[in-house]
Amino acid sequence: MLIVMDHRATPEEIERVVETIGEMGYGAQPIPGRQRTAVGLVGNDGRVESARLEGLPGVREVIRVSKPYKQVSREWRDEDTLVDVGNGTVLGGREVVLMAGPCAVEGRDQILQIAAQVRDAGASVLRGGAFKPRTSPYSFQGLGEKGLELLALAREETGLAVVTEAVDSESVALVAEYADIVQIGARNMQNYPLLKRAGRAGKPVLLKRGMSATINELLLAAEYLLSAGNPNVILCERGVRSFDTQTRNLLDLTAVPLVKSLTHLPIVADPSHGTGVRTKVTPMARAAVAAGADGLVVEVHPDPPTALSDGAQSLYPEQFAELVAQCGPIAEAIGRSLASAVQRTT
Amino acid sequence: MLIVMDHRATPEEIERVVETIGEMGYGAQPIPGRQRTAVGLVGNDGRVESARLEGLPGVREVIRVSKPYKQVSREWRDEDTLVDVGNGTVLGGREVVLMAGPCAVEGRDQILQIAAQVRDAGASVLRGGAFKPRTSPYSFQGLGEKGLELLALAREETGLAVVTEAVDSESVALVAEYADIVQIGARNMQNYPLLKRAGRAGKPVLLKRGMSATINELLLAAEYLLSAGNPNVILCERGVRSFDTQTRNLLDLTAVPLVKSLTHLPIVADPSHGTGVRTKVTPMARAAVAAGADGLVVEVHPDPPTALSDGAQSLYPEQFAELVAQCGPIAEAIGRSLASAVQRTT
Amino acid sequence: MLIVMDHRATPEEIERVVETIGEMGYGAQPIPGRQRTAVGLVGNDGRVESARLEGLPGVREVIRVSKPYKQVSREWRDEDTLVDVGNGTVLGGREVVLMAGPCAVEGRDQILQIAAQVRDAGASVLRGGAFKPRTSPYSFQGLGEKGLELLALAREETGLAVVTEAVDSESVALVAEYADIVQIGARNMQNYPLLKRAGRAGKPVLLKRGMSATINELLLAAEYLLSAGNPNVILCERGVRSFDTQTRNLLDLTAVPLVKSLTHLPIVADPSHGTGVRTKVTPMARAAVAAGADGLVVEVHPDPPTALSDGAQSLYPEQFAELVAQCGPIAEAIGRSLASAVQRTT
Amino acid sequence: MLIVMDHRATPEEIERVVETIGEMGYGAQPIPGRQRTAVGLVGNDGRVESARLEGLPGVREVIRVSKPYKQVSREWRDEDTLVDVGNGTVLGGREVVLMAGPCAVEGRDQILQIAAQVRDAGASVLRGGAFKPRTSPYSFQGLGEKGLELLALAREETGLAVVTEAVDSESVALVAEYADIVQIGARNMQNYPLLKRAGRAGKPVLLKRGMSATINELLLAAEYLLSAGNPNVILCERGVRSFDTQTRNLLDLTAVPLVKSLTHLPIVADPSHGTGVRTKVTPMARAAVAAGADGLVVEVHPDPPTALSDGAQSLYPEQFAELVAQCGPIAEAIGRSLASAVQRTT
Repeated sequence: MLIVMDHRATPEEIERVVETIGEMGYGAQPIPGRQRTAVGLVGNDGRVESARLEGLPGVREVIRVSKPYKQVSREWRDEDTLVDVGNGTVLGGREVVLMAGPCAVEGRDQILQIAAQVRDAGASVLRGGAFKPRTSPYSFQGLGEKGLELLALAREETGLAVVTEAVDSESVALVAEYADIVQIGARNMQNYPLLKRAGRAGKPVLLKRGMSATINELLLAAEYLLSAGNPNVILCERGVRSFDTQTRNLLDLTAVPLVKSLTHLPIVADPSHGTGVRTKVTPMARAAVAAGADGLVVEVHPDPPTALSDGAQSLYPEQFAELVAQCGPIAEAIGRSLASAVQRTT
Repeated sequence: MLIVMDHRATPEEIERVVETIGEMGYGAQPIPGRQRTAVGLVGNDGRVESARLEGLPGVREVIRVSKPYKQVSREWRDEDTLVDVGNGTVLGGREVVLMAGPCAVEGRDQILQIAAQVRDAGASVLRGGAFKPRTSPYSFQGLGEKGLELLALAREETGLAVVTEAVDSESVALVAEYADIVQIGARNMQNYPLLKRAGRAGKPVLLKRGMSATINELLLAAEYLLSAGNPNVILCERGVRSFDTQTRNLLDLTAVPLVKSLTHLPIVADPSHGTGVRTKVTPMARAAVAAGADGLVVEVHPDPPTALSDGAQSLYPEQFAELVAQCGPIAEAIGRSLASAVQRTT
Repeated sequence: MLIVMDHRATPEEIERVVETIGEMGYGAQPIPGRQRTAVGLVGNDGRVESARLEGLPGVREVIRVSKPYKQVSREWRDEDTLVDVGNGTVLGGREVVLMAGPCAVEGRDQILQIAAQVRDAGASVLRGGAFKPRTSPYSFQGLGEKGLELLALAREETGLAVVTEAVDSESVALVAEYADIVQIGARNMQNYPLLKRAGRAGKPVLLKRGMSATINELLLAAEYLLSAGNPNVILCERGVRSFDTQTRNLLDLTAVPLVKSLTHLPIVADPSHGTGVRTKVTPMARAAVAAGADGLVVEVHPDPPTALSDGAQSLYPEQFAELVAQCGPIAEAIGRSLASAVQRTT
Repeated sequence: MLIVMDHRATPEEIERVVETIGEMGYGAQPIPGRQRTAVGLVGNDGRVESARLEGLPGVREVIRVSKPYKQVSREWRDEDTLVDVGNGTVLGGREVVLMAGPCAVEGRDQILQIAAQVRDAGASVLRGGAFKPRTSPYSFQGLGEKGLELLALAREETGLAVVTEAVDSESVALVAEYADIVQIGARNMQNYPLLKRAGRAGKPVLLKRGMSATINELLLAAEYLLSAGNPNVILCERGVRSFDTQTRNLLDLTAVPLVKSLTHLPIVADPSHGTGVRTKVTPMARAAVAAGADGLVVEVHPDPPTALSDGAQSLYPEQFAELVAQCGPIAEAIGRSLASAVQRTT
């Protein structure tokens, strides 16, 4: 950490910074410059409370040099984390994993039909919301536990692993009971009680990047999960907020190689929320695989025009099959392959 | 709602849109144009699920005409809502209310000292966090219920009303028991289970705008509170995320007159989080009052350099007194006045 | 165009909107709704001045239905535009074109060396700035006409076509004389006198998206070029400004399929400026090709650590060769191929 | 400047950074830390080309400590710059200056009428565009030199000083001949040839902040003007691009106190472009004055509904008079006053 002093800072003000750093238990090294002095803080382990120094008289700026996160960093663990989601599917290795399914579980027939369809097309994981966080209180809010039961039934029939969202402590417990992966949605990326609870859930967590979260904030949210004892975290880029409303979000695919250089955790991409427009999902799925994503999360619905939510961005089953057909050669072009479709277990 | 068709849309595709609108229980009115046809949806009460229409073949865009929120709108209730926070202080009327205090409750002496100081300077409401949502799991997370007890003690000693943040269902219950106003923080603006719970808390709610929430999303979050039965909602502009990192956030003061034209709810501004820089707090407090804010939320600490959080943006007590001295004449210049300081009750 | 009235708009106010539309030479069709009335404007050819209607009493919002651009749209011309840049290289067809070279022309040896290197690796077009728009007045501003002469010499020696930036009317004339493609930089995307001049330059134009330009604004800037008589326009996605400073810009690859659905013009991607970080250039180049880009613009320098500008994002020549090796199979995976390297002409 | 090394950087890589800094003519001071080493660059005068260092192996990040601008900084000149615009009006001192007028000069009667109206209401400077940069090539582009003649005529009749925009080198010369202040618009803030030309125009320059320009970039653009020899620069905050489309731009009023702490140049605010909505202009004008702006730029039209551009954000003359009436007491509340209306000179 570097404490940059104002060009009019007095020797007393610089001395006070040095003393404060000492009181905080770290070493201080003044660096005089032509225009101003800076003071280096030595021994930072990423947990220094910089605001205390920012508040001192004569301080112009405090610059973090160390990363604020720890266990998620490549410096803590260099080797890629492999997350086993239970049906033989592993994220973070050579294979690119397809997670697909409807925005929301709407009923027995819908979820069983789409599960079979995405499994046959090549997916290994079934997605589908039982607890739906919706911008409007008047929108469909999901089937709740009934939805979880249907997801579990679909798993039994298809062999797919199941990922679904939890929105509060109660639903974490339920989701962890029924599903294979607990999803934390973008709106909850900084819901810290929820993260702490999910960190103790005993199941892998799919952590979606917040609407306007920096990569640092995403990794700090993951740090909540790891520091609560859960090493099995899958990050997910799903688009960030932008000034252009032509697409629902701005899919930030550079996050993929960036995250992979900073952390050992796997990262997948969600081109459905990332674009919000059906015709853009497949090109961006291809791009995500080419950028190095460890998997894709794709919304597919047996009949999108009748979907209770996100119909406009959901693929038809045959479009998803086409997406898989296009992504396979891309994966191979970079020395990977799509995860093999799961075997029917019944 | 207006459904805009592609210029190559076939008559059959247009007909399908008309039929779908009918199935959804609304009226459809096609509007042929030179380049393309649009279809008007008549009878929308703000709850139409547009995604279903966006998904139809030949549809280029769906444009919302009605506002998606209801009870918070001026159309539902034209008269300003007055929120009484319990010690004679009312938000939303002619008086501008000052809420002040430390970022976090750190201990008995700190909170009692600062409460007396901000009360003497003119504040009517004491702020101070007991449950702190922190970006890093390694930062100070607040005193929890102990902090709430200290806030209640400070209220007893000073006559100030108390506002403090709740971060999950459990803390809503506790906060509602000890405090006068339940704060929902920016990171939780779209934490819907929390909003529903706060809507049943029986205390007024201070709802902070999310990091990159649109005004529509802020009002929809408030709609969750009102539709759960709580009419006493105070909105808070606290800055949004921007591309310029010179300030912590970008304080969007236009939100003040904008929100007041769209909703009957009061709105306050938080220049401390809105700027993140101590020297910018007072000018922006003045600007917020001039823009028409119904109150201010300001971080003040007895000794900012030793603050456990947000030290860099906290005012010294004497700076807060100066802020009050500067804001008073601004309030009067626009025909309002600062809420009178509360009377000592002990 | 749809004019949405306030819910309290009077019949007189609605009538005035209808009349004003008539005065403007268009047809008006009122659409009464449950909450409010809207008025459709019929016969819009994309050139209606909406501000005139926004200013009328009782008007809440004016919504554009037609696109504001014309000649660049797919509705004006459905077939893809092919831009021939002079050495047998064509943009917009089946082949993916590689444009590569240093940020700036620094001298004879540098540009001849790198031109041969990128040509040998597979590039068809040489990029290199002679006129450099720099954020600071104290940074290297380019060699000017001398730089153009060196680029022309490099073309002679290698057979590569040349693209270089023009920054004002004088430099458009010079660039058009020496180079094969006139580049309009991101900072000048809305420099309309420059666009009009470039529209008359008689050479293809590479138009870079502005720092925070919407897709609509990019297409309107291109409309300036086409309406000035130049049909040979290549669009370029080069990243937009974002709230996260970890990368220099946020490369918006969804712009690629989006632009291709709205316009017949080719679009290329610049992963060098789009990321600003050398190690992210190759993964994002792959992603751009996978998303369907018609070409890439890549900064390559014979010795990046000594580059006078943009050293941190410039590839080493051998890294560029590796980029080409990785992008080729991606292009083939989607049924395209990299443009064949030009033949040595000397 | 601080060069932060990767935690795996070798001693050789650190040594190479030290050597390179030496070759660049500066001093190097290594700062070993627990996780990584940093190297301080001593003697930076704000002109170091950081990209050269970013490109070296083992370098993780280069952090600027010195400001990149010079002559505009408070460190170069501590005392406020006063800009005299010719009719006795001075910007940057105790008085708050009102600049008002239509978006565009539309004709003789319009400009003479509105000039008299804004003068009578209290304005000292007349604004009005003769050269209009428009997003669409099909929008009204201004009257050109004819417009400048009309502005000069209005000055003669009213005593107002005149500010109007120049869009290229030719128009700078014309504007400098006819007007008192040369305006550089937001879209041209980084049009460097234009800035250099305006820096030699011999008239004060009003420099508007770009659509998504950081404060640093705004100050660097001003540095172009000062380094070309023009000390009379007035900065203008006019809103930045945001994710919320309810307002045309997001007026960043914190820029006012921020800019005033970093530079000696005056800064004014434009609440018309800053909001884009007529009813929000007056509240935000009040807020700008309260924040400490040295002046306001306001669009006023004799009959906004018939305006050829920006009608929706233009005030009616009586609304402008009301704005002045409201801003006067705000100015006085902070110890300033509105600049006295100019005396009729004819």
